[in-house]
Amino acid sequence: MIEESTVVAFADIQVGDGGVLLAAGPCSVESEEQIIRTAHLVREAGANMLRGGAFKPRTSPYSFQGLEAEGLKLLAKARQETGLPIVTEVLSPEDLDLVAEYADLLQVGARNMQNFPLLKKLGQIDRPVLLKRGMMCTVKETLMSAEYILSGGNSSVVLCERGIRTFEDATRNTLDLSAVSLLKEWSHLPVIVDPTHGTGYKSLIQPMCKAAIAAGADGLMVEVHPRPEEALSDGFQSLLPYEFEEVVNQIRPYLELEGKQIHHA
Amino acid sequence: MIEESTVVAFADIQVGDGGVLLAAGPCSVESEEQIIRTAHLVREAGANMLRGGAFKPRTSPYSFQGLEAEGLKLLAKARQETGLPIVTEVLSPEDLDLVAEYADLLQVGARNMQNFPLLKKLGQIDRPVLLKRGMMCTVKETLMSAEYILSGGNSSVVLCERGIRTFEDATRNTLDLSAVSLLKEWSHLPVIVDPTHGTGYKSLIQPMCKAAIAAGADGLMVEVHPRPEEALSDGFQSLLPYEFEEVVNQIRPYLELEGKQIHHA
Amino acid sequence: MIEESTVVAFADIQVGDGGVLLAAGPCSVESEEQIIRTAHLVREAGANMLRGGAFKPRTSPYSFQGLEAEGLKLLAKARQETGLPIVTEVLSPEDLDLVAEYADLLQVGARNMQNFPLLKKLGQIDRPVLLKRGMMCTVKETLMSAEYILSGGNSSVVLCERGIRTFEDATRNTLDLSAVSLLKEWSHLPVIVDPTHGTGYKSLIQPMCKAAIAAGADGLMVEVHPRPEEALSDGFQSLLPYEFEEVVNQIRPYLELEGKQIHHA
Amino acid sequence: MIEESTVVAFADIQVGDGGVLLAAGPCSVESEEQIIRTAHLVREAGANMLRGGAFKPRTSPYSFQGLEAEGLKLLAKARQETGLPIVTEVLSPEDLDLVAEYADLLQVGARNMQNFPLLKKLGQIDRPVLLKRGMMCTVKETLMSAEYILSGGNSSVVLCERGIRTFEDATRNTLDLSAVSLLKEWSHLPVIVDPTHGTGYKSLIQPMCKAAIAAGADGLMVEVHPRPEEALSDGFQSLLPYEFEEVVNQIRPYLELEGKQIHHA
Repeated sequence: MIEESTVVAFADIQVGDGGVLLAAGPCSVESEEQIIRTAHLVREAGANMLRGGAFKPRTSPYSFQGLEAEGLKLLAKARQETGLPIVTEVLSPEDLDLVAEYADLLQVGARNMQNFPLLKKLGQIDRPVLLKRGMMCTVKETLMSAEYILSGGNSSVVLCERGIRTFEDATRNTLDLSAVSLLKEWSHLPVIVDPTHGTGYKSLIQPMCKAAIAAGADGLMVEVHPRPEEALSDGFQSLLPYEFEEVVNQIRPYLELEGKQIHHA
Repeated sequence: MIEESTVVAFADIQVGDGGVLLAAGPCSVESEEQIIRTAHLVREAGANMLRGGAFKPRTSPYSFQGLEAEGLKLLAKARQETGLPIVTEVLSPEDLDLVAEYADLLQVGARNMQNFPLLKKLGQIDRPVLLKRGMMCTVKETLMSAEYILSGGNSSVVLCERGIRTFEDATRNTLDLSAVSLLKEWSHLPVIVDPTHGTGYKSLIQPMCKAAIAAGADGLMVEVHPRPEEALSDGFQSLLPYEFEEVVNQIRPYLELEGKQIHHA
Repeated sequence: MIEESTVVAFADIQVGDGGVLLAAGPCSVESEEQIIRTAHLVREAGANMLRGGAFKPRTSPYSFQGLEAEGLKLLAKARQETGLPIVTEVLSPEDLDLVAEYADLLQVGARNMQNFPLLKKLGQIDRPVLLKRGMMCTVKETLMSAEYILSGGNSSVVLCERGIRTFEDATRNTLDLSAVSLLKEWSHLPVIVDPTHGTGYKSLIQPMCKAAIAAGADGLMVEVHPRPEEALSDGFQSLLPYEFEEVVNQIRPYLELEGKQIHHA
Repeated sequence: MIEESTVVAFADIQVGDGGVLLAAGPCSVESEEQIIRTAHLVREAGANMLRGGAFKPRTSPYSFQGLEAEGLKLLAKARQETGLPIVTEVLSPEDLDLVAEYADLLQVGARNMQNFPLLKKLGQIDRPVLLKRGMMCTVKETLMSAEYILSGGNSSVVLCERGIRTFEDATRNTLDLSAVSLLKEWSHLPVIVDPTHGTGYKSLIQPMCKAAIAAGADGLMVEVHPRPEEALSDGFQSLLPYEFEEVVNQIRPYLELEGKQIHHA
C-alpha cells in the first residue's frame, strides 16, 4: 500500500485523498447552444467538471471528426458561463499547445495510451493529465504509460478505467473494477472510472457508478447529452441530464461511506 | 426490469429480494478438523453458509481431486455442529443423487456451465442450484444455461459471477460486475459474486465484495482457510478467518444502503 | 521436439506420423436419407471419416437436441453403406457405453474439454478419443485434459484446434493455428483442425484448411451438408459437397509438400 | 471477392498480385556494424527488404528508445551497401517528414493503428505505408484505419497481421491467420504477416510463415539478429540469420503453389 496519495488539483478542485472528480458532458462539442446548455445542466446536477470532445478519434474517416479549434473555444465559453473547469482530449503532440491553452485537464484517450511521443510531451508541460487505460492494455502497462508522463516531470496524472475488450458482446466493453483497486494499491495516483464507455449501456451506468466508488474510485466521468437522439456521436449511451442527476444522488451515500466528497470550483 | 424477483430459500435462508447469501469456507474439504474448525470460524465471522469442495475439477490429473464421498460426510458433520447449510459442487450427472443427499445448495462450476446433461438432470430434482458463469461464457449464454434447469421444472436457481478470461494477467480472471447488474435486469433470479476466483488476489477481495453489493449482488462466496499455506488447493487466494470477518464488517453498511440483510439458519 | 509420434489407428486409417484424418459430414444427424446421402458424397469427395452429431450440446434448451440413440443407429447404417468410419460426440459419462458401441472415434466437444469425470471414464475404455480444445482453454490446459485420458490407460488421443473466443466479431471464433504447431512440438499426439467452428465463415474454410496443413496439422474436420439451408443446426457454416471436394483438391498439394497422405478404410 | 488487387510498388519490388514482400532485420537498429552486417546476411538468405526500428515504441520509459535520427542514417547506409529497400516505423506526425526522407516503406505500428492524426498525414504523402493491425483491433477497424490513408489520397497501403491479445499465455499474441484471408476477401490491398510478434516464440516462426503463405499472405516480416542474446530489444524472439535462411527455403515451395514470387530490388 502506498503511504501518501497524490492529489491532482486544478481550479479549486482536488482529486485524490478524499477529493472526487465528477466530470459530465457530451461525447462531442456540437454547438454553442448544446455545450453551454449541457454545462449548466450538469453543474446543477452536481458535476464539478465539464467534459466534451473537440478533437475526436473516430474509427471511420467518414464519421464526424469534431469541431477541433472551434470546439475548444466553445468549451472555454461554457467554462466562463458556468465556472466548471473543462477536460477534453488531445490526439497528437502537434495539437498539444493548442489544447493546453483551453483545457484544465488534458485527456489521453484509450487509443492513445501507448502513443509515447504524446506521453513524452505531456511530461514536459505544466498541466494535469487524465490518462485513460487502453482497451487492450494491462494494469501494469497503464502504470508504465503514466510513468512516461511522471518521469518527464509532470506529476499531475489521473488514471481512468474505461473498460477493456473481451468476448462479451452484451456490453461495449467489460468494465474492470478490480483494476481500480489494483491501480490504487500499486500506485499513489488518483483513479476515476468512465462507466459510459466501460459498458455502452445506459441502465448499467448507475450501478457501475456506485460499484466504482465502492471499489475505491476517486471520481467518475459520464456522458450526458440534452438530446441524445440528436447527438453526433455516442447518443445511444448518453444519459439525459435528469438521469445524471439521479446518478449523482444515488452515489452520494456511497461517497460518504468512503469518506470522500465532491469539491466545486 | 423484471417485476417480481425469485427468492431461493433453504434452511431458513432466503436469497434474493433483500436476502443475502454469504457463503465462506475452504476450496477443498481436507480433513474433519479443517472443515469443522473453518465452519465455526466463518459462522462467527458472519457467514450464513459453508462452502467446501468434495469433488474437485482440477486442470491436472495429478492434482488433489478431492475427498469425494468422504468429503460430503465431513461437510454434513460440519453442518450438524454449526447449523450452517452447505454448498458443494457436483461434477457429473452420475454423482448428482449422492451430492444432493448432502448439499443444501448444489454448485455447478464454471467449467460445467454448459454441461447440458448435468443441467437437465438438475432441472428434475427438488434442490436449489448455484450456477456459476463459465469463464468464457456470455451473459446471454449464462441465462440460457439457467433456462435448462428452470425449463426442467426446478425454479430454484442462484446465478454466480466469478470472473471471465481476458488478456489481463495481473488477476486470475477479470471480475465482470456489469454482468451482475445485467443479470439482475434481464432475469428474476438472485445473483451472487465470487471475488476469490474472480480476482485470485487476496487484497482485491474486500473492495470487490463492496463493489459487488453496490452493483446489486444478492450475496457473496469467499474462500476462507484457517491455514492457507497448508491448503491442498487455492491457498494463495484464501482469506484467513479474521480477514474474512473484516470483509463482513466492511460490507455491512453497503448492504444497509441497498436495503439487504444476511439471514441466518 | 518429441522423438516418436503417436499414431492413432482405427478401421485401416492411421492418424499421425504422415497419416491424415479427413472427417466430414453434417453438424447433426437429421434423417436416414440425409446422413446416408451425405456419407456417400463426402466419401466421393475424398473424406476418410464421417462426422455427425447424435447428442448435441446446444446453448438453448429450446434448440434441436439431436436424435440421440436413433442418430447413432443412422450413423452405423451410413458406415455400413459407405465403409466410412464414424466420429460422433459423447456428452456425458452416462452415455459413454452407448456411444462407444457405435463410434469409431469418440469426440469430446469444446464445452466438455474440462469435464473431468467424462475424461476419466474415457481413460478406461479401449476406443480412440478426439479431444477438442475448449474455446476458453490454453494449450497447456488442453494437454492436461489429454493427460486425464492417457494417464487412465487409453493412449489413443487425437487433439483438435477449433478456435478460441476473442474480441474479434467478424468470425465466430479465432482459429489459433499457432496452437497446432505448439501442440505438435510439446506432445507426441496427432492434432487436427476444425475450420468450420474455428471461423464460422464459409469462404474462410478453404484457406484455413491449407494453412492448417502448412502449420503441421494431421487432419481436418469440416461440416458438409447437402442442403445447408434446411439444416437443423449450423447450416450457415456448412459447405456443399462440391465445395468440400474443391477443398480436398486444394489441400492435396499441401499434404504432398508435408509428406502426408489420406488413408482410406 | 475484389476483382482487381492493388499492387504496392517501390524499388523494383511489387507487393500484391503475386509479388511477395520478405522483410527481415533486427527489432532495433543498434549500431552501424549490426545493421549493415544484418542487411548483408538477410539479403543473402533471400529477403528483399530490410526492417529495423529507429524510433521505438517501448512500454516502459526506461527501456531503450531507439537511435532515432541516427538510426535512420544507419538504415540508409545499409541500403546503400546492400541495395535492400528499408521499412521502419514512424511514431508521430511530427517525425513523419524526417522518417519519410529515409524509408522506402513507412511502418505504422500496432499501437498506432488508431492514431488518426498520423494516419491522416500519411494520406497526404507520396510514400507507401505498412499498416499493422492493432493488437486490440478488429478486421473491420483495420480496414477503417486503412481508409484514413486511402481517402486522403495515398493509395499505397500494405496491411499486416501481427497477432491479437487473447487469454492464451503460451504465445506473446495469438496470430490470427483467418484475418489474412478475410482482409484479402474484403479489400484489394496486399496483406503480409509478422509471425515474430504474432507468436513471440522462435520455433513457431517457420510453421506460421508457411501457414501465412497458405492463407493467402503477400509477404512476411521476420525479426533477425546476428547475436540475439545481445539485442537491445526482442532478442528472445529473433532468428539467427541461418535460421531465417532455413525459413526462406521452407516457404519457397508454398509460394510456388500459390503462384507467387519474391522480387528483388
